[in-house]
Amino acid sequence: METALLDQVRRPALLVDLQKVCANITAMRAKVEHNQVLFRPHFKTHQSARIGKIYWEMGVRAITVSSVQMAEYFAAAGWKDILIAFPLNWREMDAVNALAEKINLAVLVDCMESAQFLALHAREEIGVWVKIDTGLRRAGIWWEDSRSIEEVAKKIIASPRLTLKGILTHAGQTYHAECAKTAKEMAFASKQAMLSAKEYLRKRGLTNIQVSIGDTPGCRLLDDFAGVDEIRPGNFVFYDLEQWQLGVCQPQEIAVALACPIVSRNRDRRELIIYGGAIHFSKETLSVRGQPIFGMVAGKRNEPFGVLHPDCVLRSTTQEHGVLAMSEEPFAQYQIGDLIQVFPVHSCLAVQALGEYIEIRSGEHIATMVTKKDGCT
Amino acid sequence: METALLDQVRRPALLVDLQKVCANITAMRAKVEHNQVLFRPHFKTHQSARIGKIYWEMGVRAITVSSVQMAEYFAAAGWKDILIAFPLNWREMDAVNALAEKINLAVLVDCMESAQFLALHAREEIGVWVKIDTGLRRAGIWWEDSRSIEEVAKKIIASPRLTLKGILTHAGQTYHAECAKTAKEMAFASKQAMLSAKEYLRKRGLTNIQVSIGDTPGCRLLDDFAGVDEIRPGNFVFYDLEQWQLGVCQPQEIAVALACPIVSRNRDRRELIIYGGAIHFSKETLSVRGQPIFGMVAGKRNEPFGVLHPDCVLRSTTQEHGVLAMSEEPFAQYQIGDLIQVFPVHSCLAVQALGEYIEIRSGEHIATMVTKKDGCT
Repeated sequence: METALLDQVRRPALLVDLQKVCANITAMRAKVEHNQVLFRPHFKTHQSARIGKIYWEMGVRAITVSSVQMAEYFAAAGWKDILIAFPLNWREMDAVNALAEKINLAVLVDCMESAQFLALHAREEIGVWVKIDTGLRRAGIWWEDSRSIEEVAKKIIASPRLTLKGILTHAGQTYHAECAKTAKEMAFASKQAMLSAKEYLRKRGLTNIQVSIGDTPGCRLLDDFAGVDEIRPGNFVFYDLEQWQLGVCQPQEIAVALACPIVSRNRDRRELIIYGGAIHFSKETLSVRGQPIFGMVAGKRNEPFGVLHPDCVLRSTTQEHGVLAMSEEPFAQYQIGDLIQVFPVHSCLAVQALGEYIEIRSGEHIATMVTKKDGCT
Repeated sequence: METALLDQVRRPALLVDLQKVCANITAMRAKVEHNQVLFRPHFKTHQSARIGKIYWEMGVRAITVSSVQMAEYFAAAGWKDILIAFPLNWREMDAVNALAEKINLAVLVDCMESAQFLALHAREEIGVWVKIDTGLRRAGIWWEDSRSIEEVAKKIIASPRLTLKGILTHAGQTYHAECAKTAKEMAFASKQAMLSAKEYLRKRGLTNIQVSIGDTPGCRLLDDFAGVDEIRPGNFVFYDLEQWQLGVCQPQEIAVALACPIVSRNRDRRELIIYGGAIHFSKETLSVRGQPIFGMVAGKRNEPFGVLHPDCVLRSTTQEHGVLAMSEEPFAQYQIGDLIQVFPVHSCLAVQALGEYIEIRSGEHIATMVTKKDGCT
């Protein structure tokens, strides 16, 4: 792990283990192929054209993003089939039209107002998914509100430039499950709700309605996607402590960690003060033994990261400071000036905060610095 | 507020009200002058050379930052007296030396190892403050550990290139106070601890030891800074919901809000879905009526922001989504496609996340887009 590039790390840096990334994508793709669904991975987790290329080389051609800006970035990197999985932002309609001119673009609507707005302002062919709420209680039409779903779907069908793709949900409620079993039950219930909504539409004469589902816990935990047309997991490419605690991944599957300089040691409290705080890890927390934590040490000195140390936790973060509380033995191994590897609670937010990363390969002394715009064609 | 520039806002944008910024600086400066202490404001809150210029025009010449990068940025903008209020990061020693060649630079050490490292590697004249912990339990030598403080101070004095400036604390424990009265008591106790540490050093023959204190709650709430040489508040330039809840500021003093596009409305739950989430507001929370909130609506439609609406709260954030729960009357006033102004819980983190801002002046129809690098000379 102590490559020449890592020796050059001066500030908190995101490490991405490409070995683990490839294994995570391969495992999800195997499930996709077994179930014969379309794989439309969410790219908001990595936001990197270089990591996008790994998917491309594995045959993926359709992707999901969560903003118009991200769609523009990946379109510039050569992607031609992009779904913006965020309720249509009316204020970005010009950019949506400009993108739809170049690529096969789809957007979400979750109400009649937005369907009408889109029908009125679309200047290009645009694919449309109706966003369904199956329990997250964020955006989307409630899955049992069949009449509203039907009305919005029919409005889209009636609009010359719009193509109704189907119905879509994000069962993010699985993130709040107490354990993997509950998460799986939630994901199953969400999928069944979608099939029920589709069946209602079929009875009302709306055929060719596709079903798109998406959260990482559900896509990892469910075995059977019968009736589903495409899946859109994103986080699985990196995983993180949240997924580990949910029982969705193993520690050795977590593909990202932050390398942080140690700037002080408190012997009395057995704490390391690191350069690495809220602006790097985000303020997302996990409850461990009743206490909120912001990260967890990802392997001892000279270990490849992937070995969790639940007795070495990031107990607090402020803007740039982090405080790592540890047991005696690991504490003694670290000195001021060393780098320490820490897993983030939520990899999507840490990736967004850092904006660039260092590629590593477990066990190999290879490391490459990658800025966000690398890999654009 | 509905200026032409705001009409052009497409994505979540940070609004900074310069009228309020100037009033906040003027009020703090009046306190500084009354107490005859040096004003060394912390610039990590705004991170903007343009806002730095407002301080400069009010006569401020000494500043605080929290990273070497920020010191480089403000040095490039013309600042000559900069304190990096973060424990010395050994891995950035080359950059520290390069800065010290150009400007009057000071750094922090909080242990003998770092004092020795600095003595060994300083190639330029560098000012040094000994970081003291007066209750935050983050970095710093505990204020009652007089012998360690003395040893570190003497090591610095004995090093030809280092100049001991004094002792410094950040009483960030005030942020966790239950009310303004407790915060003030904590700030007072912290100041007294510093004076006691200084007195110990004086008795041991160390004179000319300055005392530097810094948190916004303490600097706002304390009336008397007798014995203190300089203060380093930062957040007060913008304030935020956290300071308001602490009783440190009035709602009308909060100088920043996020303008977020409304992308969906849920009539049953009286909720607005906004484009504005964890990557804009951060995940910092405040407890309101026993529930964590991530922001609060900062004025109704067509009101200048500054009027708090505790019945209109940002109840959840995910990567790009925010969910605003509201009472019936304000809910009815907002439509999809509108912008809504929302106060962040912690302005420092929101500013860091957004990276650019729009300057406005309360009541005037003036708005200017400012990117982070604007204002550099």
